[in-house]
Amino acid sequence: MSELRRDPIVGSRWVVFAPERRQRPQQLPLPTWPLPSPSPFVAGNERLTPPEIFAIRPAGSAPNSPGWKVRVVPNRFPALRVEGELGREPVGFYDRMNGIGAHEVIIETPDPSLELEEQTQEGVADVLRAFRARMADLRQDIRLRYVLIFKNVGALAGATIRHPHSQLIALPVVPRAVREKLHYAELHWEAKERNIFEDVLRSEQKSGERMVMENSSFAAFCPYASRFPFEVWIMPKFAAPDFYTLDEHNLALFAEILRGVLRKLRRGLKQVHYNFVIHTAPFRDPRSGLWSLVEQTFRWHMEILPRLSNVAGFEYGTGFYINPVFPEEAAEFLRRVRVE
Amino acid sequence: MSELRRDPIVGSRWVVFAPERRQRPQQLPLPTWPLPSPSPFVAGNERLTPPEIFAIRPAGSAPNSPGWKVRVVPNRFPALRVEGELGREPVGFYDRMNGIGAHEVIIETPDPSLELEEQTQEGVADVLRAFRARMADLRQDIRLRYVLIFKNVGALAGATIRHPHSQLIALPVVPRAVREKLHYAELHWEAKERNIFEDVLRSEQKSGERMVMENSSFAAFCPYASRFPFEVWIMPKFAAPDFYTLDEHNLALFAEILRGVLRKLRRGLKQVHYNFVIHTAPFRDPRSGLWSLVEQTFRWHMEILPRLSNVAGFEYGTGFYINPVFPEEAAEFLRRVRVE
Repeated sequence: MSELRRDPIVGSRWVVFAPERRQRPQQLPLPTWPLPSPSPFVAGNERLTPPEIFAIRPAGSAPNSPGWKVRVVPNRFPALRVEGELGREPVGFYDRMNGIGAHEVIIETPDPSLELEEQTQEGVADVLRAFRARMADLRQDIRLRYVLIFKNVGALAGATIRHPHSQLIALPVVPRAVREKLHYAELHWEAKERNIFEDVLRSEQKSGERMVMENSSFAAFCPYASRFPFEVWIMPKFAAPDFYTLDEHNLALFAEILRGVLRKLRRGLKQVHYNFVIHTAPFRDPRSGLWSLVEQTFRWHMEILPRLSNVAGFEYGTGFYINPVFPEEAAEFLRRVRVE
Repeated sequence: MSELRRDPIVGSRWVVFAPERRQRPQQLPLPTWPLPSPSPFVAGNERLTPPEIFAIRPAGSAPNSPGWKVRVVPNRFPALRVEGELGREPVGFYDRMNGIGAHEVIIETPDPSLELEEQTQEGVADVLRAFRARMADLRQDIRLRYVLIFKNVGALAGATIRHPHSQLIALPVVPRAVREKLHYAELHWEAKERNIFEDVLRSEQKSGERMVMENSSFAAFCPYASRFPFEVWIMPKFAAPDFYTLDEHNLALFAEILRGVLRKLRRGLKQVHYNFVIHTAPFRDPRSGLWSLVEQTFRWHMEILPRLSNVAGFEYGTGFYINPVFPEEAAEFLRRVRVE
């Protein structure tokens, strides 16, 4: 028997769990995955990228020279640019604005074959430090409302370059995916005066059946209404609306759990293609009333979305998903995958 | 310069138009597309499918025998089933219900190589008659709230079977994609006492720059905030919240424009993979107050979504889209594609 589940945070989203659809023929054959040559992301090829914005490199070494551990550069094919006016305006019946924002690439390592989860914990922590630094910098631009950090791994997840990297897109509007979570978090607060993320964590810790990993500051679990097979969310156990306020102690613990979850996915699902995204509170003016409400209701977290099948007409037509794997099964499987 | 555009109907959805991203390397190589053998959908193999629910076949011919033009059967791997109770209930902190609904396949032709747009106009009309008949039948089940009709063509669009077919999924909840459109249509009505779909049509007819085709009852245009390159919406020019009320005269005109648009896409974009979905008003009780508001604010329409690239972390993280082709260019290109 299949089952429909409502997401408590994205309240309008129902997911159809349909285990019988596992017997279907394989949807999408794995396409080949091009390796660009010469790669602009390897050490020594720094001149092939736009000049770096940020890097973790030895003290005294010159920008855009080898020796770096993590390097952030503008995307060569940016969806949005920093220069210009917002230009919000009506066009007849419609609304438009200029493509102001930022589109950056976080090159996670100079080694083209060192996947994020194969780095040391300190290596993963350096990548997270680059995320934090870029987000903290961009929030000072008052035209911007949000910075999305995301990673596409594999062609099925929309990746075009194989060299391990993440991306950042800064936007002049709050993404609807985040607005929707804020909306339901506020409704929950109004109804119960409790933080919905805390309630989710409490519920997951109590039952344990969807829990994948935990440490003293973070929990990783398959969400109750997972859209994708083996979807995993990582959530801090402490109050924190904004990712960029992560301190060094908790950053190390986030690196530990992120590396652990990605290793389990990679080992358990054999080179799975996936996306991850960080959802953090939108940038806001401390003088506005919004500040205190978001502080109470929101908590940053990461969604990891394995891409084992393609989205099709049903998903576009409804905004719902069909998932052949229950999160309890996915979590049990992932708990058993051994990683050192 | 890239540009952000807000969708007037899905008011929280902004789309990033980034023409410079066209210079990027090709995202997803075209995977091969399996032909099942023996196909359960060809004439003579009727016993390989579950028994038919509906068919357009010669008077007096037996169900599940050859001779049919269009045949509707249950999906062999259904996401939802008709049998059982809704079972809406809380599970601790969460909400669930049983997977009640329907999942049917509309086999558009007994010929495995006759694509929908290569059928005669009368052949396309027969497929639309099957859509209409199934929707009219399923709305009598008071447990159901919505019937989504959709089509996946090609592996990039999530198709697993090549034989021309569409699908229908009936749901016990209103899809969020439809709720969202209803929400913004109501806000527009409250603000202006005008139907938002009429305002969109009026705007598109006035400028003409995004118009692809028109006949006396329908307009096909690339929407202002198209999510995908060459996205086309087909909308009736007359007031009609519900697809299933389409009369024979307008059904013929819808068949004409749908066939024309699909031919333009197929010829212009060379065997493009695509999805289409029909958005219609949710089922509702005529005694409820909702009835009259939906009558005034909503209009059924079809979205045709070519799948030339894959969705990735940005789309999942934001609910926004990055589109390298402006709809004005897409529409001009499609207007010029000659179809007989």
